[in-house]
Amino acid sequence: MRDIKNRMLGKGSMEFGTPVRIACSASIVGKKEGEGPLGQLFDQVGQEDMFGAKTWEEAESTLQKEAVQLCLDKSGVKIEDIRYLFAGDLLGQSIASSFGLAQYETPLFGLYGACSTSGLSITLGSITIAAGLADKVMCVTSSHFASAEKEFRYPLEYGNQRPLSASWTVTGGGAFLLSDQPEQKDRAQIAGVTPGKIVDYGLKDSMNMGACMAPAACDTICRHFQDFKRKPEDYDKIVTGDLGYVGQQALFDLLSQKGIDISDRHMDCGIEMFDQNTQDTHAGGSGCGCAATVLSAYLLKQLEEGNWKRILFLPTGALLSKVSFNEGQTVPGIAHGVVIEAIS
Amino acid sequence: MRDIKNRMLGKGSMEFGTPVRIACSASIVGKKEGEGPLGQLFDQVGQEDMFGAKTWEEAESTLQKEAVQLCLDKSGVKIEDIRYLFAGDLLGQSIASSFGLAQYETPLFGLYGACSTSGLSITLGSITIAAGLADKVMCVTSSHFASAEKEFRYPLEYGNQRPLSASWTVTGGGAFLLSDQPEQKDRAQIAGVTPGKIVDYGLKDSMNMGACMAPAACDTICRHFQDFKRKPEDYDKIVTGDLGYVGQQALFDLLSQKGIDISDRHMDCGIEMFDQNTQDTHAGGSGCGCAATVLSAYLLKQLEEGNWKRILFLPTGALLSKVSFNEGQTVPGIAHGVVIEAIS
Repeated sequence: MRDIKNRMLGKGSMEFGTPVRIACSASIVGKKEGEGPLGQLFDQVGQEDMFGAKTWEEAESTLQKEAVQLCLDKSGVKIEDIRYLFAGDLLGQSIASSFGLAQYETPLFGLYGACSTSGLSITLGSITIAAGLADKVMCVTSSHFASAEKEFRYPLEYGNQRPLSASWTVTGGGAFLLSDQPEQKDRAQIAGVTPGKIVDYGLKDSMNMGACMAPAACDTICRHFQDFKRKPEDYDKIVTGDLGYVGQQALFDLLSQKGIDISDRHMDCGIEMFDQNTQDTHAGGSGCGCAATVLSAYLLKQLEEGNWKRILFLPTGALLSKVSFNEGQTVPGIAHGVVIEAIS
Repeated sequence: MRDIKNRMLGKGSMEFGTPVRIACSASIVGKKEGEGPLGQLFDQVGQEDMFGAKTWEEAESTLQKEAVQLCLDKSGVKIEDIRYLFAGDLLGQSIASSFGLAQYETPLFGLYGACSTSGLSITLGSITIAAGLADKVMCVTSSHFASAEKEFRYPLEYGNQRPLSASWTVTGGGAFLLSDQPEQKDRAQIAGVTPGKIVDYGLKDSMNMGACMAPAACDTICRHFQDFKRKPEDYDKIVTGDLGYVGQQALFDLLSQKGIDISDRHMDCGIEMFDQNTQDTHAGGSGCGCAATVLSAYLLKQLEEGNWKRILFLPTGALLSKVSFNEGQTVPGIAHGVVIEAIS
């Protein structure tokens, strides 16, 4: 039995009595992502974005399947030893996960948190391990540029113009193996979480999701500092998922109204993913796969190499659908905060 | 701190060291459901299925909002004392939950398990309480006949014919208040869970979801008995979510191949919900709201009144979307098993 001294903190945070280990992780991305600044760091880069499949949705399922397989291969853990999968994606009824993961025949918790789903899956996977109710779980999320455009905006063939505030959905999948057994080779550990609330400032522009999600990121950051009695300096980096350039500025503005300044340690996975000058991705990358692949390929590497001691990983999600958008609804946001620390 | 002696059982089940209490619950349904055999038992029956909203999706959001409010009112618990919401629905990007629950300003775990989502939400809510990481959580799920027809099949105006194997999506929402503090008035307790795997027998008929989901129910039941070292007789009832008449027979056939007979104690929420002879609902009710409202209104009442001691609650989900269906994919199933016991 695990030594459990988990703690509820403040109004909505959790601290794990024994930090949950990220034993291994893997990332797979599309061609464009492979050509970006982080291109060399991903475990696998596709040569074409269909990944051998017949439809965009099937291509995204392949990202989920491959991310899990890569993570199994890298860790040497067998699928039979993974007790649960925690998975989600952006598509209606989460079909990328369902059709990508069926073959693994592993009990599945299906999740939806839009682009925040990587944080959601790692949070719920960590809780289950912290409860002593699983020894090894895998958390996996994906997004695909073409399936997301089809799902949320226009068919690619339509060739719509994209405003500068629009983000570019990352084609990628990331998988994380969480474990209750500390080992020397673990990548990092999860010390606690601050799950997100839905925050809705009434914005309706689905081509400016950064601004729509910034209030949620601000809310989670403020509650996190309060609940953990910490300040920005307690983190080497505070890393949002896909606010992009526009959302980053909105976040700084909102936080400054609360007297908080994170500008010297803020990083955004969407900004890191692409080269704004040469890749024509406007506000930056987005999608479930953005934060997941950047966490696996870049952020955990910095923690492993001792460059950082502790980060707040904060994937952000925009809770819209094409139906809600077409019916004139707002675009509410949510942001799940995860405290990830280097193994000391 | 909570006394935690949670146990992993077998290959995928969990037993909670201290059973998690269902302190309260609430149900709200549409007009047709109110006219069915269980009509008198629901907390609230709508007079018209728009529930005062402008769109079907907004109507479904109202079901989520009202189910939570009813549960708060009945329990006397304030929303500020609910630590987390665990919620989901059938719509693309779970918009019924997002727009229905935003006003509560409570951290949210968004889930997707198709019609199994009530089991999924209660499972994850229970794990979080069993981890000592929450004291009170609310699990809420909904479905709406009209929003589901629009999402998965045809516009209502099209007036398509429905084969006899088709089910009727229940208009309803159910909310469950889980607590770590035992009280005299608690409705029941959750002793353990067997989360579901995706099971795909290759069926493609979205108008026969009972048959598509039966293999998943069979898989979870078999694993459950094995993991808990139990047999059908250990349960007063084994209650699937929405297999309906066709799926029920398929489940009996599949289980008989494994030498298991549950026919004398099986019950299906979809079958209970409507009168097959007079309500023209063919194979029975379905949807997230079906299992959730029947659990709240009928099953928990039987446990409270001492008619049953222990049930296996097993909501079933069909993991399709209109895109996966139109692309010729199969309809895989999933079933999450929850052991619910009377307070002794």
